[in-house]
Amino acid sequence: MSVVILTIIMVFGTVLALGYAAVNYFAVKRMEEGTERMQEIAAAIRLGAATFINYEYKIVAIIAAIIALVLGIMITWQMAIAFVIGAVMSALAGFIGMKIATYSNVRVTNVARETRSLGDTLKVAYRGGTVMGLCVGGFALLGIIIVYLVFGQGLGQMQEIIDGVEHINWWGLPTTFTITLSGYALGCSIIAMFNRVGGGIYTKAADMGADLVGKTEYNIPEDDPRNPATIADNVGDNVGDVAGLGSDLLESYVGAILSAVILACEVFRSHHIDVTKGLVVAMINYPLVFAAGGLIACVLGIFSLLGKKKLSDNPHHELNKSTWISAGLTLVFGAVLAWFMFGKISPAELKGAQFAAGWLSPLLASSMGVISGIVIGMFAEYYTSYSYKPTRVIAESTKEGVALTVTEGLAVGMKSTMYPCVTLGLAILGAYQLAGMYGVAMAATGMLSFVTATVSVDTYGPIADNAGGIAEMSFLDEEVRQITDTLDAVGNTTAAIGKGFAIGSAALAALSVMTSYLFTFTPPTERIVLDVIQPLTLVGLIVGGALPFMFSGMLIDSVTKAARLMVVEVRRQFREIKGLLEGEVLPDYETCIAISSKGALKEMRVSALFAVLFPVISGFVFGPLFVAGLLIGSTLSAIMLALFTGNAGGAWDNAKKFIEVGGVEGIGRDSEEHKHAIVGDTVGDPLKDTVGPSLDILIKIMSVVSLVMGVVFSRFNLLSWIQSLLS
Amino acid sequence: MSVVILTIIMVFGTVLALGYAAVNYFAVKRMEEGTERMQEIAAAIRLGAATFINYEYKIVAIIAAIIALVLGIMITWQMAIAFVIGAVMSALAGFIGMKIATYSNVRVTNVARETRSLGDTLKVAYRGGTVMGLCVGGFALLGIIIVYLVFGQGLGQMQEIIDGVEHINWWGLPTTFTITLSGYALGCSIIAMFNRVGGGIYTKAADMGADLVGKTEYNIPEDDPRNPATIADNVGDNVGDVAGLGSDLLESYVGAILSAVILACEVFRSHHIDVTKGLVVAMINYPLVFAAGGLIACVLGIFSLLGKKKLSDNPHHELNKSTWISAGLTLVFGAVLAWFMFGKISPAELKGAQFAAGWLSPLLASSMGVISGIVIGMFAEYYTSYSYKPTRVIAESTKEGVALTVTEGLAVGMKSTMYPCVTLGLAILGAYQLAGMYGVAMAATGMLSFVTATVSVDTYGPIADNAGGIAEMSFLDEEVRQITDTLDAVGNTTAAIGKGFAIGSAALAALSVMTSYLFTFTPPTERIVLDVIQPLTLVGLIVGGALPFMFSGMLIDSVTKAARLMVVEVRRQFREIKGLLEGEVLPDYETCIAISSKGALKEMRVSALFAVLFPVISGFVFGPLFVAGLLIGSTLSAIMLALFTGNAGGAWDNAKKFIEVGGVEGIGRDSEEHKHAIVGDTVGDPLKDTVGPSLDILIKIMSVVSLVMGVVFSRFNLLSWIQSLLS
Repeated sequence: MSVVILTIIMVFGTVLALGYAAVNYFAVKRMEEGTERMQEIAAAIRLGAATFINYEYKIVAIIAAIIALVLGIMITWQMAIAFVIGAVMSALAGFIGMKIATYSNVRVTNVARETRSLGDTLKVAYRGGTVMGLCVGGFALLGIIIVYLVFGQGLGQMQEIIDGVEHINWWGLPTTFTITLSGYALGCSIIAMFNRVGGGIYTKAADMGADLVGKTEYNIPEDDPRNPATIADNVGDNVGDVAGLGSDLLESYVGAILSAVILACEVFRSHHIDVTKGLVVAMINYPLVFAAGGLIACVLGIFSLLGKKKLSDNPHHELNKSTWISAGLTLVFGAVLAWFMFGKISPAELKGAQFAAGWLSPLLASSMGVISGIVIGMFAEYYTSYSYKPTRVIAESTKEGVALTVTEGLAVGMKSTMYPCVTLGLAILGAYQLAGMYGVAMAATGMLSFVTATVSVDTYGPIADNAGGIAEMSFLDEEVRQITDTLDAVGNTTAAIGKGFAIGSAALAALSVMTSYLFTFTPPTERIVLDVIQPLTLVGLIVGGALPFMFSGMLIDSVTKAARLMVVEVRRQFREIKGLLEGEVLPDYETCIAISSKGALKEMRVSALFAVLFPVISGFVFGPLFVAGLLIGSTLSAIMLALFTGNAGGAWDNAKKFIEVGGVEGIGRDSEEHKHAIVGDTVGDPLKDTVGPSLDILIKIMSVVSLVMGVVFSRFNLLSWIQSLLS
Repeated sequence: MSVVILTIIMVFGTVLALGYAAVNYFAVKRMEEGTERMQEIAAAIRLGAATFINYEYKIVAIIAAIIALVLGIMITWQMAIAFVIGAVMSALAGFIGMKIATYSNVRVTNVARETRSLGDTLKVAYRGGTVMGLCVGGFALLGIIIVYLVFGQGLGQMQEIIDGVEHINWWGLPTTFTITLSGYALGCSIIAMFNRVGGGIYTKAADMGADLVGKTEYNIPEDDPRNPATIADNVGDNVGDVAGLGSDLLESYVGAILSAVILACEVFRSHHIDVTKGLVVAMINYPLVFAAGGLIACVLGIFSLLGKKKLSDNPHHELNKSTWISAGLTLVFGAVLAWFMFGKISPAELKGAQFAAGWLSPLLASSMGVISGIVIGMFAEYYTSYSYKPTRVIAESTKEGVALTVTEGLAVGMKSTMYPCVTLGLAILGAYQLAGMYGVAMAATGMLSFVTATVSVDTYGPIADNAGGIAEMSFLDEEVRQITDTLDAVGNTTAAIGKGFAIGSAALAALSVMTSYLFTFTPPTERIVLDVIQPLTLVGLIVGGALPFMFSGMLIDSVTKAARLMVVEVRRQFREIKGLLEGEVLPDYETCIAISSKGALKEMRVSALFAVLFPVISGFVFGPLFVAGLLIGSTLSAIMLALFTGNAGGAWDNAKKFIEVGGVEGIGRDSEEHKHAIVGDTVGDPLKDTVGPSLDILIKIMSVVSLVMGVVFSRFNLLSWIQSLLS
């Protein structure tokens, strides 16, 4: 497949996605906002979210500029520019997606109010969500196209890979197209880390603050307008669950695609794998065109829902259908493209590149990713849905007190790690058998190939949640709230599956980037190994294992710090503002918004810099073997902790909901047991919404940073310098 | 050093230790028991503990017999016998140590009652504890001597190692002295696992049951005789914190010593390390004689305290002095012995065995272990003592509700993993530089070389705790309780350091056994590697990482299951027994004891079998490379989880104590905040006392089992069978 056709497919997919996003954006914005009170609240949420994201982006811009400068000086200017492009794409997707979410929420409430139709309301909420989904897919690919055309083709970096030419930077380091691509991925990752951590701290500080005082101490329901932190809580949903999630998945998507591209480039440089130029170009291009095909498939999948005149009253069914159409078409397109790209290459040649199933190998490897992602999501649902035993046991244990409620949740979270890991293991084995390490990278790409569809559904969740909050705060009647609650509940199930994809793909992408990293300092004549019995690597492994734990502890600290300030403020308002509890006057929402913002902005810097600086500094001190251990150790720990925190948090959340829907006999809302369940939920909040998702980004940032800097610190590091002095 | 001299030193150390244990045993038993009420309570505790351990040992005997039979048939009869010897030694130490603890407790109370002297009371409590300490060191070494003399010398297995002769069993498998030694270690490990898990479930079910209803719901103090679970709680201290801890540390001790011996044997078989026969014999014998020297040093250290006429009123100081004398003398003896054994070997030859510091190398490597163990213990103290910030922050956060108390504790636990891991890493690097992987094994041996002294102090803790309980239940006056409380508090600090040694040595021993395991299937002409980028190993690594999480979750489940039954029973008694709360009648203690026993006996089997069967079954299915990944993955996760659970649990415990001693302004006993702290403590209970210590044993059992079975499943496994069918 020529570069022209490849470019046409990619540009077509991107234009289609971004165009459709624009259509949906304006379609939603055109709608009515409802009563004056609704407009007021929506405006407050919108203002809070916009203010926060503007502040955040200003800080992030400065940090990103510094990093770009360092990269430009130390590595290449191409990489620095690619980094900036990545950062801009990720920031744009988060910004636009969040913007429309803050328009959609009140319009969803209004449609529910006016039509009382589940189907009509679903459509608006989903339309709002698709803007984020389409922006994630569209901007990710747009950036890749720019980098690919400008640096890969225009400046000839692709040809250098193929010819085996190495450019040398001003202080003697070899730089390649893979470095430029890593720069792009790193740009996306940095924004994702800031949005995830910043948004996560914001939303959980507000959420915990609102719950700890409102629900637990004053016994007033969620989203009650008397609670001073309630607007902040709703703002938090937008900056955390929308902007944070969007940037996060954009980063995962880019990470997965580029890890496959980079690995294909590196494989070519290794003398141990026997590939021709034609095949390697196909291997480099396939993930790109596969992603473009996936994007087109998702547009069709989304249209299959939004294009319908009338939706059924079963939102679960409608959303699932749209997602499966997207996924199915992605694989069909992928198969067609695989035939075009690998079909003409001789079987013997494909075998040389470890392709076990001929031209279909990379597509089958991708399917491994899709299947394992679904299975991991199903396990997540088993452990966190109240239709199954684990969550029900937690709900039951509220009878024996709050300690056992917490303990039981921890146990569920811990036990929930095994089966997803076995699934991931089988997927790795299968993908490896099909197409070597390239197959593993393609499995990650496969998992995320229909990310546009899943993000649309994921974003629809917080929009529906917000809509419910607005209904509550605007004193709309019960029926409206019921519609939004039904939509929200569906969002929770799909979110569980989304988390399966997120952690699974993060692990696979990190492993594949790590493999590319090993190529950077292994002489091309040697096999790559990651020998953890080698003492430096072993020590790296152990320290790396502790890293995600420390990172998680620091994040929880950040959330609790902000949450404690919020608790103090909410208590103060309840105590000092006369008539507040009686509903006669409104609380001071702004102060709470300011507390969440300040807390999030202050705390997010440390965690993000930690992820970047830890591998770099330890690389310059202990060298590449240590960092190799560090990467595998932290990836392993992060997988476990992400599963543990995500599932424990989800199970506590739903155990509480199970009690609320009357699932445990003799226990209702506002009972002692319900309070115990709320404590469990509150403990789980920072675990599942701040820690878990940030861990996915942590391991990818670490592996990408190491890949980029590996070239530098494999030549210059303190330890080898001391050794050369001694000998 | 000839075998005769070696044997004399070892026998001398063993006889000295066991003789001194007997002296102390009868010295304690001779003392008065106090009032009738005190005698009654002590008898009830003693009976409860004895009944449980008898039941437990009956079950364990059957399981051990089955395992021995399997080992005898599949591997060698020598190994089966060594396994039985190990099991008997470990069981004996646990039994005798626990027996004397149940005699000591009431006598400690009585001395406090009669003399009102802190020093005199300390002496009795410590004397009781030394019986366990001396039994651990004595029986461990006794078993090693038997195995060494009978199999190593008598049956010539040592000579076979030196001559490179391999015996073949009836179905064609090579068997060596290392297999016999592994059998001994495995025997100790199995008993340790049962005692730890069984005792851990027993004690925490009783403890949580007593606290959840008594303290939280009825507001009655700890150890109040009105609480039906209080006797069970005190029995639990004996079966869990005494018998469990004793077997656990005996296992660690044996594991560390034998891992060094086994590694020395295996190193000899590798063509890559250049050693002469004389040197390898010295390397095999040194850990044994070093341990014997340590045992003699500990006897002297213990005597330095017990031999004094009058002790000062500063128990912390007295105990520390005795421990440091033991540790210091151990290193001095170790240096002398190193000179005797390696001093005459030429420097060039020592260099060939990777000895970087001449004859002193193994001793210096051991010192690395001692120092890092102390440093890890100091970090544990920093994170868990209320003299420092982390625990105080938890105590403060009780003001913001129970959810933040729990969250903050989780954060402390997570953050606490980093520095111990860095310390462990530095120790590994240092020890490796000094004497290769043998140095790492010697570091583990070093950490545990004065285990007799540390176990004595560790056991003294629960004895003092029990003594306080008896004082409370016998209505003795406040002053008596104050004396026992002071002694108990000192025990807590030393326990933190003890945990540092336990996890540190477990990690080092597991790593060194793992290295020996790699030798079993690596051809002698090849370098050993543990390449985790190899797909099977990578999958093993990921599944292995999840294993300790799943194991922990299962253990917590077991504890909570038993605790929930206890809660129901205690509530029932408070409700149904008239006059109980008013203190007019006594509760039904026996039913609570029976619940704890039944729960523990039922649940312990699964966890123990899990540890043994998981590596074996996966080895027979996926082969040795998968198991290699499994071992390193689970070791890594287990280190993190052990640190996390141990420190989080300890911090919650002491945050509660900090509030009780009035450390947080405006908050006292029985305040809302104190209740929040109690919840934290209860959540931490199963984490720090059941999960954490069991993880240490888990990774050692897994690595020893793999070492033993590796010979079998590297030849016969499903995957290679399928591959051979396909090709």
